Amino acid sequence: MMEYAAIHHQPFSSDAYSYDGRTVHIKIRTKKGDADHIRFIWGDPYEYNVGRWSANEQPMRKMAATDLHDYWFAEVVPPYRRLQYAFVISDHQGDIFFGSSGVCPHNEKTLETTHYYFKLPFVHEADTFQAPEWAKSTVWYQIFPERFANGREDLSPENALPWGSKDPDVNDFFGGDLQGMIDKLDYLEDLGVNGVYLTPIFSAPSNHKYDTLDYYSIDPHFGDPKLFRTLVSQLHQRGMRIMLDAVFNHIGSASPQWQDVVKNGAQSRYKNWFHIHSFPVKEDNYDRFAFTPDMPKLNTANPEVQRYLLDIALYWIREFDIDGWRLDVANEVDHVFWKTFRQAVSAEKPDVYILGEIWHSAEPWLRGDEFHAVMNYPFTEPMIEYFADGTIPASRMAHRVNAHLMNGMKQVNEVMFNLLDSHDTKRLLTRCRHDEKKARALLAFMFAQTGSPCIYYGTEIGLDGENDPLCRKCMVWEKEKQNRDMLRFMKRLIALRKQENTLLTEGSLEWNLLDDQNNFISFSRNLDEKTLIYFFNQGDATQHVSLRDLNIERNKKIYDVWTEQPLHHHDVIAVQPGEFFILGAAVPV
Amino acid sequence: MMEYAAIHHQPFSSDAYSYDGRTVHIKIRTKKGDADHIRFIWGDPYEYNVGRWSANEQPMRKMAATDLHDYWFAEVVPPYRRLQYAFVISDHQGDIFFGSSGVCPHNEKTLETTHYYFKLPFVHEADTFQAPEWAKSTVWYQIFPERFANGREDLSPENALPWGSKDPDVNDFFGGDLQGMIDKLDYLEDLGVNGVYLTPIFSAPSNHKYDTLDYYSIDPHFGDPKLFRTLVSQLHQRGMRIMLDAVFNHIGSASPQWQDVVKNGAQSRYKNWFHIHSFPVKEDNYDRFAFTPDMPKLNTANPEVQRYLLDIALYWIREFDIDGWRLDVANEVDHVFWKTFRQAVSAEKPDVYILGEIWHSAEPWLRGDEFHAVMNYPFTEPMIEYFADGTIPASRMAHRVNAHLMNGMKQVNEVMFNLLDSHDTKRLLTRCRHDEKKARALLAFMFAQTGSPCIYYGTEIGLDGENDPLCRKCMVWEKEKQNRDMLRFMKRLIALRKQENTLLTEGSLEWNLLDDQNNFISFSRNLDEKTLIYFFNQGDATQHVSLRDLNIERNKKIYDVWTEQPLHHHDVIAVQPGEFFILGAAVPV
Repeated sequence: MMEYAAIHHQPFSSDAYSYDGRTVHIKIRTKKGDADHIRFIWGDPYEYNVGRWSANEQPMRKMAATDLHDYWFAEVVPPYRRLQYAFVISDHQGDIFFGSSGVCPHNEKTLETTHYYFKLPFVHEADTFQAPEWAKSTVWYQIFPERFANGREDLSPENALPWGSKDPDVNDFFGGDLQGMIDKLDYLEDLGVNGVYLTPIFSAPSNHKYDTLDYYSIDPHFGDPKLFRTLVSQLHQRGMRIMLDAVFNHIGSASPQWQDVVKNGAQSRYKNWFHIHSFPVKEDNYDRFAFTPDMPKLNTANPEVQRYLLDIALYWIREFDIDGWRLDVANEVDHVFWKTFRQAVSAEKPDVYILGEIWHSAEPWLRGDEFHAVMNYPFTEPMIEYFADGTIPASRMAHRVNAHLMNGMKQVNEVMFNLLDSHDTKRLLTRCRHDEKKARALLAFMFAQTGSPCIYYGTEIGLDGENDPLCRKCMVWEKEKQNRDMLRFMKRLIALRKQENTLLTEGSLEWNLLDDQNNFISFSRNLDEKTLIYFFNQGDATQHVSLRDLNIERNKKIYDVWTEQPLHHHDVIAVQPGEFFILGAAVPV
Repeated sequence: MMEYAAIHHQPFSSDAYSYDGRTVHIKIRTKKGDADHIRFIWGDPYEYNVGRWSANEQPMRKMAATDLHDYWFAEVVPPYRRLQYAFVISDHQGDIFFGSSGVCPHNEKTLETTHYYFKLPFVHEADTFQAPEWAKSTVWYQIFPERFANGREDLSPENALPWGSKDPDVNDFFGGDLQGMIDKLDYLEDLGVNGVYLTPIFSAPSNHKYDTLDYYSIDPHFGDPKLFRTLVSQLHQRGMRIMLDAVFNHIGSASPQWQDVVKNGAQSRYKNWFHIHSFPVKEDNYDRFAFTPDMPKLNTANPEVQRYLLDIALYWIREFDIDGWRLDVANEVDHVFWKTFRQAVSAEKPDVYILGEIWHSAEPWLRGDEFHAVMNYPFTEPMIEYFADGTIPASRMAHRVNAHLMNGMKQVNEVMFNLLDSHDTKRLLTRCRHDEKKARALLAFMFAQTGSPCIYYGTEIGLDGENDPLCRKCMVWEKEKQNRDMLRFMKRLIALRKQENTLLTEGSLEWNLLDDQNNFISFSRNLDEKTLIYFFNQGDATQHVSLRDLNIERNKKIYDVWTEQPLHHHDVIAVQPGEFFILGAAVPV
């Protein structure tokens, strides 16, 4: 008996949306194993009224599964951009009709009752989520400026410690700066990354600079506008993009605005810039970021604050030509502000990338009128729990990955900001308990998924570190202290990503094998006639894959993607414990 | 075994929202009968980080059920306006934890894993759906101006037919006008309605005027600006509101803009005001409303069109002080336009009511930044199918009503525009096959639900009519031809609604009895210490209700709400076939 209570389709969500302004994507969820097949029934809502309603029918494709659910997919281009639709779900007992009134008997009367259908009343380009095209082919590199490279000793804070002389404490300075980044552009280009995300660089007392003092000035220990302009233009010359960090949820307590409130209390002209419960302000009678007294929360419902922040957002685009804004604590700022922000910023530079810091599922921010992407922790977290922590089996990991992908529109998943660590987490290598193979496998796994991958500075040379402050160690530049194997690995991984980018971004994901017993996984990424088949062996025994068993069409050339060596259809591949293997299959051109 | 696949909670939806800028409402759905109880676990996300996470726990209330699901509810005021939460669902087999990663074992480790929780990161007033307070206490009266009353014979079209001389054909005119409405204000006030919604009154060739010629002028057959100003001010003096119909999806083909396109083709300065596929325009090479050639669809993504339409929206508010806009075919216009519309209109007059014509579920338009309400056909349709058509049993009706209510935020349901018929449907009496008792029961039923009820002109005196054009008959003003019983009934119903408005708007809904066999229903509406208990007998046999069995607290005064006669706790009430009865129970003041 089919479980009706588990059937789910949410109209006007990532279950039913315009992919490109014409094509509509439709998803429906059933209890796992319940439905044998599903037909998608659709037509124009007004053809019914004029007496010529003839529903179109097409089979849906089972596109993913979790432990509990199957997800089904259909794609359609409604000729008049208007759509009414429903589902006929079949199992061995017969057919049911599922529409806007829930489950109904599948008969002529139901099929003819127009208000039993879901509606997508009109497909508008203006309502379609669209992101800058370049974001799809970007491999990001996150820099924590104080710890990346010190290029101008003269700018370093007086109390700066010798570079890398110790593990950082919360309040340490080491002198990293913009000149340091400029000096390392060859390094970055050689690594292959083509997008750089800098945590805040505006004047602020701390080393992390999330306690902004002045949003209009480069922190003097980092450099000045001229240096920043040089950095941007040199990045652009190398085909690389730059994204800055906008800390708009709160301001630093050292800022003139907050200091005015401290000094003048209820008489301050800035008193409505914040959320103050009583005067004079003390440690806890105002809204702060988390419970941090030196980060008073800004009142973004105040039009004056809105104008202030928007002007900052536009200033750095207009004057310095930056390519993206990463928005700190974006989930705690109101949607009204972000919608205004999006409009203003996109009007200034239409292909700016807007990335929200949101750690949880973020659908409301990703409807097309706020952000292009969020820091995709919920997507990578199951991967980390599987590879690094070993706390969940492969199947659970795959199911959570699937559920997350099914939760998003395809074009959103394609430009998400995927990361395994950051200045806010343990470093990858540390989370992998210094098992370098695990770290590599995990990186290879993430780089094989849709979305723009980001690596945190130093990952490529084996930097480790526990949670903040230890994940913010100085970058190691002495070659003999770098893990050169890891560096070679990352270069290859990045090169591969860029080479196969269209497939890895837009291609379908199919899980071939989720062997929890042997800890052996295989999945494919497919686009058109090309396939990459990934194998990850996280078990203790060597796994042998007989290529013959994969039933790859004989007209396809097959090869080892990593080494680019050709393979034969009768070969047997050995995947060693901890290792991975990528098989390519394509029709020769 | 609990059906995990049926558990559903959608963060950032009507399952988790701010009711008033501080209070959060939370809903979760389980398979019917599955859960014995559910605990809501919540806390501040940062209390976890600072090591003092202590989750709060509170029981959820089972608030509604459908044939397939139970819905559970909790309300919480997070002290820092930030919320992380999850659910512990219990049945006889034990507890499970349900959070952002789905079903997890309920243990210490799960409870401490912060990313397993749903988040409502910050409750903002700016993101909270809010509607004009007056909408909650409005009983609407819909007027089709050409057919309500003819007050100025001199303005009538030359070919106007004698008032009510025949059933209307599609192109007939009878001469209804604004003066007619002004003349009937005493009638409306006596009836008790306090909001009037007029279908379009701007210049247009047709009798319905949905094919706008000029949005800035009153149709000359209806009157002029002076007359309209008088109408508005006299309505306002009587404490009544007025809502006009904005037809912004399309314009009339007689409009100067479209005529310019017809004349000048690709050279027309208005060519980008529409969606034209090729020139010259013929019958079907441009987007139209439905397939109607004389209603070319406007291109609301064109900033020029936006400015044009917004100016119209503001003009009628600014110059004539109207109170609401009903938006025709609102679902086929893009969201970007409606968001701009909402901002502009609300800035001009903050308590304007914005009502979208949407016949299906309309969640994306009701998030707080577009409309306040939609024409709530999907809510009343199951009522009509039960009472009028007799095609569904009482239980199915109640389940669909419940599902619809559960789909909306409470504050949205409270201001919805509930209607049983309109100029676009059969008339109520006709749908009831002229069974007046059924029509009354249905009206009483709708008036007992949350949301603002609307009656279509003439319902109160027994006007009937099939679908358009027959649902647009001339209003009958000769007393001897009016159904005076129906009029008395409607006056009482309206008076009762206004008297019990807070309870009927904000109170809970509880189904006491859904007896499909005997076609006998009972439900209660409750607020604070007051209860109204409704009984509807749609069966063939008299039903007796022993008040003793209702277990009403003895300290409460009970009474027949309709007649205001007191009752005794030992009374037995007889509800005759087709009739309804309303029992009141309140603590005497």
